[in-house]
Amino acid sequence: MAESNHLSPGWNLPAGEALLQDVFGIVMEEIVRKGTDASEKVCEWKEPEELKKLLDLELRSHGEKQEQILDRCRTIIQYSVKTCHPRFFNQLFSGLEPHALAGRIITETLNTSQYTYEIAPVFVLMEEEVLKKLRALVGWSSGDGVFCPGGSISNMCALNLARYQRYPDCKQRGLRALPPLAIFTTQESHYSLQKGAAFLGMGTDSIRLVKADERGKMIPEDLEKQINQAEAEGAVPLFVSATSGTTVLGAFDPLEAIANVCQQHGLWLHVDAAWGGSVLLSQTHRHLLDGIERADSVCWNPHKLLATGLQCSALLLRDTSNLMKQCHGAQATYLFQQDKFYDVSLDTGDKVIQCGRRVDCLKLWLMWKAVGGSALEQRVDWAFTLTRQSM
Amino acid sequence: MAESNHLSPGWNLPAGEALLQDVFGIVMEEIVRKGTDASEKVCEWKEPEELKKLLDLELRSHGEKQEQILDRCRTIIQYSVKTCHPRFFNQLFSGLEPHALAGRIITETLNTSQYTYEIAPVFVLMEEEVLKKLRALVGWSSGDGVFCPGGSISNMCALNLARYQRYPDCKQRGLRALPPLAIFTTQESHYSLQKGAAFLGMGTDSIRLVKADERGKMIPEDLEKQINQAEAEGAVPLFVSATSGTTVLGAFDPLEAIANVCQQHGLWLHVDAAWGGSVLLSQTHRHLLDGIERADSVCWNPHKLLATGLQCSALLLRDTSNLMKQCHGAQATYLFQQDKFYDVSLDTGDKVIQCGRRVDCLKLWLMWKAVGGSALEQRVDWAFTLTRQSM
Repeated sequence: MAESNHLSPGWNLPAGEALLQDVFGIVMEEIVRKGTDASEKVCEWKEPEELKKLLDLELRSHGEKQEQILDRCRTIIQYSVKTCHPRFFNQLFSGLEPHALAGRIITETLNTSQYTYEIAPVFVLMEEEVLKKLRALVGWSSGDGVFCPGGSISNMCALNLARYQRYPDCKQRGLRALPPLAIFTTQESHYSLQKGAAFLGMGTDSIRLVKADERGKMIPEDLEKQINQAEAEGAVPLFVSATSGTTVLGAFDPLEAIANVCQQHGLWLHVDAAWGGSVLLSQTHRHLLDGIERADSVCWNPHKLLATGLQCSALLLRDTSNLMKQCHGAQATYLFQQDKFYDVSLDTGDKVIQCGRRVDCLKLWLMWKAVGGSALEQRVDWAFTLTRQSM
Repeated sequence: MAESNHLSPGWNLPAGEALLQDVFGIVMEEIVRKGTDASEKVCEWKEPEELKKLLDLELRSHGEKQEQILDRCRTIIQYSVKTCHPRFFNQLFSGLEPHALAGRIITETLNTSQYTYEIAPVFVLMEEEVLKKLRALVGWSSGDGVFCPGGSISNMCALNLARYQRYPDCKQRGLRALPPLAIFTTQESHYSLQKGAAFLGMGTDSIRLVKADERGKMIPEDLEKQINQAEAEGAVPLFVSATSGTTVLGAFDPLEAIANVCQQHGLWLHVDAAWGGSVLLSQTHRHLLDGIERADSVCWNPHKLLATGLQCSALLLRDTSNLMKQCHGAQATYLFQQDKFYDVSLDTGDKVIQCGRRVDCLKLWLMWKAVGGSALEQRVDWAFTLTRQSM
């Protein structure tokens, strides 16, 4: 690190470098080694009041010595949950993938935003390649996509794209210019659809719950029935959200049959494959998602089954008409100038609802390069093997 | 790292540890040292086609040797923009804060989600404390808040909260049950308000542009006029978005006068202080935000002026009635059980539109602990000094 700093007086840069070295050592010892050791605890549990005292959270006007900061890092790690621990089973993610973590450390240190080629040349091209690969696994040789801040927002964006495709006017004139719209999903689907319907101004009432069978899978005949009923009640059926890998039961909705219904009625088919999308890597198990290539949009979170680390959520589109940029774009002239010295169609900022956007592709790309698609397939197959052994 | 791994067969863990050590070494040399050295380039620019060849982005079924992966890491860094470089001035963020980066490396390695106390005990309490501190700087001794994935989504959430507060029915019944709503901001404000009005189903037509003066500041008399005109046209004035630090000119809207107008008409006052919020740390310059304590909501991104790294965007609320959870909650029973063994009011998942949510508080907390609020104040003052020297 250079000796002087342009940003601020009194910044001690050699000390900063030493801090980073020391913190990395602590991370390796206390998380990477101990956190993955089955003989250590998953979490040293404390009640909130006691934990507050142990952490001394208050932010003051004076700073602290480096040794004290290092102690704080150790304390933070000590009382945090080790999601990389062999006995951590709380959520739909776990484990520690060293190549993905390496990608994340590079991402954090480079600290750039994904919106234009000029500020993120490597990552704009890399995101494009990673999304192309994920689309190929879905069964699409063309299409569009982007990484979103989590599956909930991916699902919301899919809903917004479906709405815009049917009613482009909505972007400018709003929902008041539209007929009431109907969304279809099962009780087993993720609650982000409820949140999305509310956030997008459609209201949770616009969601019609389709029956699921005893294994949690959508019943296509009931979808047909619900669509007819919505129409009879004066609503316009718009969007079906099928799930590949439901949160609680891990059910895979029958996509072929659902796609038939959507095709017949002209509805947008979204597949929430946040958890189950990674099963597409497995020749043995990918039949669970047969028909996914007929979807209009797919949400797939490699941070779940592929353990790339939070957040890594791809929204994939079959569309080739530039729908994302038309729907989400705001053409901010100070950032997305049209007279740049490179092909501005590379800029991704108008595809998304954010402005600054984190780089979420490198961790997945680096892991894939390091272990290869065939090893990722083995990992997915192994997860299925473990599930069967525990049943 | 333990010798065996539960997640997958054939995972070579000692090699993973060695990889992390080597990648950290590369990061320190190529980004932290060279990237901050003014005699090195900010970016080694390549045209897209040439860069694609240099990166060999294709994802294949076979993996690669560790040495090749390390070479790839060096290449990625070589052709990426060094946002930490002393001559990087492209965006509203820059620099490299070693304490914040240390916090980010810990965050990435612990890899947890911020939604419940049981999965993120340290970070749930830490987020609360950091938000309390930011609120105190705004001038609030109580209130609510959360870290969002960027300022655009913070601004959208503020708009949704204002809408819900006025029309709680909207969450269930949607916008069709409501009168047309009007949003007020200037041409100088950030485009996320346009994106938000569209995404939230209100339509960009609901935004009414208030005139700004020659320095880019909102003219309160014109706000008054626009409100009256909206009412005359049958719309319900709902939301004013003032800006503290506009994107292009760095203008600070006159908040006291705007708050007077909002108070008189009963409108929600949001302050987009994504860039300018950090000026509240400066005794010398915080007068630019006089009146911010009268706002209903504030967006403040420490990843800009305070250089904590992307993403660190706080949405702060004056509300003490639990509006966030009521507005954004979906009460998913599998995740937010009400019969847990701790006080479930600590769980933050129902405050936000996401499900999984990154930990964004540690980098800011650790930096603050290390350097103290007084050094942060000096950094802000120094940024103003530099601006004046360059004018």
